[in-house]
Amino acid sequence: MRVCIVGCGAVGSLFAANLARLEGVEVWAYDLAREHVDAINRDGLRLSGAGDVVARLRATSDAQKLPPCDFGIVATKAMHTESAIRATAHAFAGGAVATVQNGIGNEEVIAGHVERVIRGTTFPAGKILAPGHVQWDVKGDTSLGPFEPQPAPFAEIERLADACTRGGMPTTAVADARGPQWRKVIFNASTNPVGALTGLTHGRVCEDAGLRRFVSGLVDEGKAVAAAQGIELDADPEELIDHAAKPEVAYDHKASMLQDVEARRATEIDYLNGGIVRFGRDHNVPTPLNTAIWALVKGLERSWVQTQ
Amino acid sequence: MRVCIVGCGAVGSLFAANLARLEGVEVWAYDLAREHVDAINRDGLRLSGAGDVVARLRATSDAQKLPPCDFGIVATKAMHTESAIRATAHAFAGGAVATVQNGIGNEEVIAGHVERVIRGTTFPAGKILAPGHVQWDVKGDTSLGPFEPQPAPFAEIERLADACTRGGMPTTAVADARGPQWRKVIFNASTNPVGALTGLTHGRVCEDAGLRRFVSGLVDEGKAVAAAQGIELDADPEELIDHAAKPEVAYDHKASMLQDVEARRATEIDYLNGGIVRFGRDHNVPTPLNTAIWALVKGLERSWVQTQ
Repeated sequence: MRVCIVGCGAVGSLFAANLARLEGVEVWAYDLAREHVDAINRDGLRLSGAGDVVARLRATSDAQKLPPCDFGIVATKAMHTESAIRATAHAFAGGAVATVQNGIGNEEVIAGHVERVIRGTTFPAGKILAPGHVQWDVKGDTSLGPFEPQPAPFAEIERLADACTRGGMPTTAVADARGPQWRKVIFNASTNPVGALTGLTHGRVCEDAGLRRFVSGLVDEGKAVAAAQGIELDADPEELIDHAAKPEVAYDHKASMLQDVEARRATEIDYLNGGIVRFGRDHNVPTPLNTAIWALVKGLERSWVQTQ
Repeated sequence: MRVCIVGCGAVGSLFAANLARLEGVEVWAYDLAREHVDAINRDGLRLSGAGDVVARLRATSDAQKLPPCDFGIVATKAMHTESAIRATAHAFAGGAVATVQNGIGNEEVIAGHVERVIRGTTFPAGKILAPGHVQWDVKGDTSLGPFEPQPAPFAEIERLADACTRGGMPTTAVADARGPQWRKVIFNASTNPVGALTGLTHGRVCEDAGLRRFVSGLVDEGKAVAAAQGIELDADPEELIDHAAKPEVAYDHKASMLQDVEARRATEIDYLNGGIVRFGRDHNVPTPLNTAIWALVKGLERSWVQTQ
């Protein structure tokens, strides 16, 4: 089995290194960060933290070097999906491509370039410490299922899920992957931008009654949009919020969007709250709070660009 | 006529210096900023910009030094109303006290300490350049009217309005001062926190379609709360927003709340959006957007305080 990780950042690296440990799985990593690619090819890809792994794999920034693959796993930031899959699609002409990205709408973009698509959601997290070295912050489950309009065969989805699980990334093949995906999107969209706008860590957002009411208002809109599509959430997103607010879990954790804002990098807001608003519009579900916070974060991004 | 300006910051200084130019008006200024008080007593109070004035008046940080006054004009930030009027109330035992502050609820606080209260709203703005020296940024009108539960006699309100007008601060005595007040509160509450959270100037907030829709959503809630109280706005707050967004007016102006946020000073959000939410609750008018942005700005203020 040959797998290519498209976007070998923190999350992509967790899949790449763990899959590369398996016999019979050949892993490629496609990433535009040259130093990271060079370090992986020279010293292997190293994970430390929740698990310690050093794995040998092939990395490249040149998509033309990729051989035909059975599977792709797209793990770029959502705003880079289009360019990444356009560059690499040729490698998946006979295979299937999964996304483990944040947000809504990545499957649709991937399906514009490849035939068989796998809807996916993953909860593990980490951060790049140095080129070739990723800190594995938290373990967590992954769900994979068919992307409804252009599904990969279910047996193939099971084959990929099985490999991930054997590699140390517990993964379930499910008939409808929208439930876990929307649970995570609602969680992210309801907490990340609140941290990003206020500068508060996850725990401090949740302990403030006024902010928590606002977070729950965002959650309620997301649930209504999911329900209007006939999506059954696999659990209540509020549970994820309660969990992450615990001191021993992520109380002091700055949401990735807050990290983006502090570094003045473009955020994934268009694929989180923006996605909820778009799907809400398509299904006549009002989303005034998600619309408002989407506009605020876009305004914040715009303030970094001087005019005149 | 003896008038005491309670809180001689930028706006208070505009009233103090302009009134002090009049024959027959004795002006006192009460302020806790010692350097400013000392400079006023030594060199006079100087305005420059929209008008150039140097006025002689008496300034003090010791409320016990204040003589009995015919009028007080409270011009502190809204969160300092209580302490300022508690300290100075003795000077107004036989007089009437007006507020020209931002926000809702200042009259109620003043009425807890003095008998005759004047509801007021003012549009001129400025900033302190140095102790004793204030830049007068924009001219504008002032409205004064009775505070309904503890009104000053209308003839007294007219006397104060007439003095302000003669001094160069055009002021109208009106039977119901709630219209102009709510128009200004709605304007401030709908634009200031958006600038404060995004870092955008007034003009840049308004030229972004998404943010402008959010601003108008905040305005609509404020209008509904005003209408529920039977308040007739003297004009549409949207006109103020359009006006301030013009390049030649305040396109590049950072809202005072953004200036507060950049300096990590407590904002007046509790008296702007917080006031609209409280009055909305009292009159069964839902204010979800004002509630949300109130919580976000309070969260931002909280982020400046380290925990642990």
